[in-house]
Amino acid sequence: MNNINSIGYEISFQNSLNQLISFIDNSSYTKFFILTDEITTVHCLPALEVRLVGRTYDLIEVSAGEECKNLDFCIGVWKMLIDFNADRKSLLINLGGGVVTDMGGFIASTYKRGIDFVNVPTTLLSQVDASVGGKTGVDLDSIKNIIGTFTQPKAVFIAHEYLSTLPERQILSGLAEMLKHGLIKDQAYWNDLKNSDLSLPSAELVYRSVEIKNEVVIADPHEKGIRKALNFGHTVGHAVETFSLDNDKRSLTHGEAIAIGMVCESWLSCKKSGLSQNELDEIVGVLMRLYPKYNLQLERADEIITLMRKDKKNEGNKINCTLLVSIGNCLIDQICSEDELRESLEFYAGL
Amino acid sequence: MNNINSIGYEISFQNSLNQLISFIDNSSYTKFFILTDEITTVHCLPALEVRLVGRTYDLIEVSAGEECKNLDFCIGVWKMLIDFNADRKSLLINLGGGVVTDMGGFIASTYKRGIDFVNVPTTLLSQVDASVGGKTGVDLDSIKNIIGTFTQPKAVFIAHEYLSTLPERQILSGLAEMLKHGLIKDQAYWNDLKNSDLSLPSAELVYRSVEIKNEVVIADPHEKGIRKALNFGHTVGHAVETFSLDNDKRSLTHGEAIAIGMVCESWLSCKKSGLSQNELDEIVGVLMRLYPKYNLQLERADEIITLMRKDKKNEGNKINCTLLVSIGNCLIDQICSEDELRESLEFYAGL
Repeated sequence: MNNINSIGYEISFQNSLNQLISFIDNSSYTKFFILTDEITTVHCLPALEVRLVGRTYDLIEVSAGEECKNLDFCIGVWKMLIDFNADRKSLLINLGGGVVTDMGGFIASTYKRGIDFVNVPTTLLSQVDASVGGKTGVDLDSIKNIIGTFTQPKAVFIAHEYLSTLPERQILSGLAEMLKHGLIKDQAYWNDLKNSDLSLPSAELVYRSVEIKNEVVIADPHEKGIRKALNFGHTVGHAVETFSLDNDKRSLTHGEAIAIGMVCESWLSCKKSGLSQNELDEIVGVLMRLYPKYNLQLERADEIITLMRKDKKNEGNKINCTLLVSIGNCLIDQICSEDELRESLEFYAGL
Repeated sequence: MNNINSIGYEISFQNSLNQLISFIDNSSYTKFFILTDEITTVHCLPALEVRLVGRTYDLIEVSAGEECKNLDFCIGVWKMLIDFNADRKSLLINLGGGVVTDMGGFIASTYKRGIDFVNVPTTLLSQVDASVGGKTGVDLDSIKNIIGTFTQPKAVFIAHEYLSTLPERQILSGLAEMLKHGLIKDQAYWNDLKNSDLSLPSAELVYRSVEIKNEVVIADPHEKGIRKALNFGHTVGHAVETFSLDNDKRSLTHGEAIAIGMVCESWLSCKKSGLSQNELDEIVGVLMRLYPKYNLQLERADEIITLMRKDKKNEGNKINCTLLVSIGNCLIDQICSEDELRESLEFYAGL
């Protein structure tokens, strides 16, 4: 598995923690900072620390969880960087899941108008999604990633070994994005996934997922067009995720919410963009087998639709979806009415 | 006075408020927002409003003053943009001084990962400095512009008529940056300024100042090298400004602080980088004639030097200055010791 070339930087897969050490040793940064959360400090930092012996760095730890991905935590980290006298030639190493890589990327891209950062994604979700594409961001008022920048990391190091530290639910969360990559762009990959043991996806399957995402991102770094393909499942999914974060004691993971979103948007695809009934049945079958059924409260569908209206992807009050034409092919910028979106939620609830 | 071409956008001088209206009418933005502060709402918005009749826009007003240039105010504006359903194709029009253009630029460059903005600078300082160069930012913990981005506006509209609304102290604040432009790059311009009536600098003098700044910025947009020339007077000046903001009841304006910084750094230039005694005397003479003497508390010089150490421009714990070789020529990246900087403060105090 060769390194993948992205927009001005490489994504490493083989011996990638050692590649990170080489990257550090061959660089001219004045200082190194590692951003972790309380979970990655325990499970992922040790493998890095043994390799960093003899090198100087400072550690900045934040609390774990999506509810910490906000400006208050950014301010805390910015103040620590100031206290540590981080200058413009410092490097921030983001070691963690999507919360750490998204927030750390935003912190780095705005501290002193931008310092360099690298990502070491430690969850399956962040390996196949957040770590590639240059989107940084934090939430505000429960709206996901509403504040952020497009800034590319200087390198990404994907260590498959970290996946064995994850609970099953975290694996399933990342798997939703992998399945999405197959659905929007590569039917053969979808079939591979369908027929694999998915309790711990192989390094090769992870690699292919990153390849697909990277191809899309390179073609359209700032999401003016084709990159919107990656939003399949996310118009409904993000809204359901936010609703769950605000209302459920044990809230949905990102992937669980996106799986629901993909079911709903596949139904919309069948209704609006030519997806066949057979393929809809196949997609729904796979997703409902892998993900537990969520108790979607239809009497509160209006609240979920209000959240969809606030989605960054919309333009001029219209709700925008990416829909499938067939497995492996999609159409961006498909306007859906509120009635259609409500019906798609009813379809899910009725399964 | 033709429009000046900057990095991907134009700076207009002639009939520029009408040029702004044409820009709006010929654009395809979905929504328009005007960011003002409580002062520009009164003094500068009316001239724009009469031209905007029949067009739809929303107004967002913040309090005035450097102490409002912080993340709390950004959060307030971001939330208003969310409430107004500002989408990615919205335009933010920053109408105000450097606080509004710097903060508005930062808000726009990070809202939904970046929406377009234009600047309508209303103070002399923002016309000749903040509005050109793509630096956006806000303060944190009294450290100026520590959080920000490099993002170019889509256009800048400089209306000389706004200068007549300014008190004398605000004119002097901008004048310091104009004098700096002469000192670092153009002796003839310095001589022009020296011999002009500076109670209201002419449109031609403002134009030349923007030209000089723009030449430097185009050569080095991200301040890796020659753009640091613009930092002349700012290592000492920023620290004195921050100290004054934290300690004085009636704190120094930016320009007053930079004038002090230029006196100190001219003294350092005479000591270290070849500025002649005659030219030092000339610079000090002009600056001390224009700007009131500040009561610099030498017993607290250590606090001011500590602030210099936190300056964004430093690398690896060294304090970095731009110094003059002669009037119109400078050298970047000149390391100054704390003793030298303390002596330069003593020189100012002894004048």
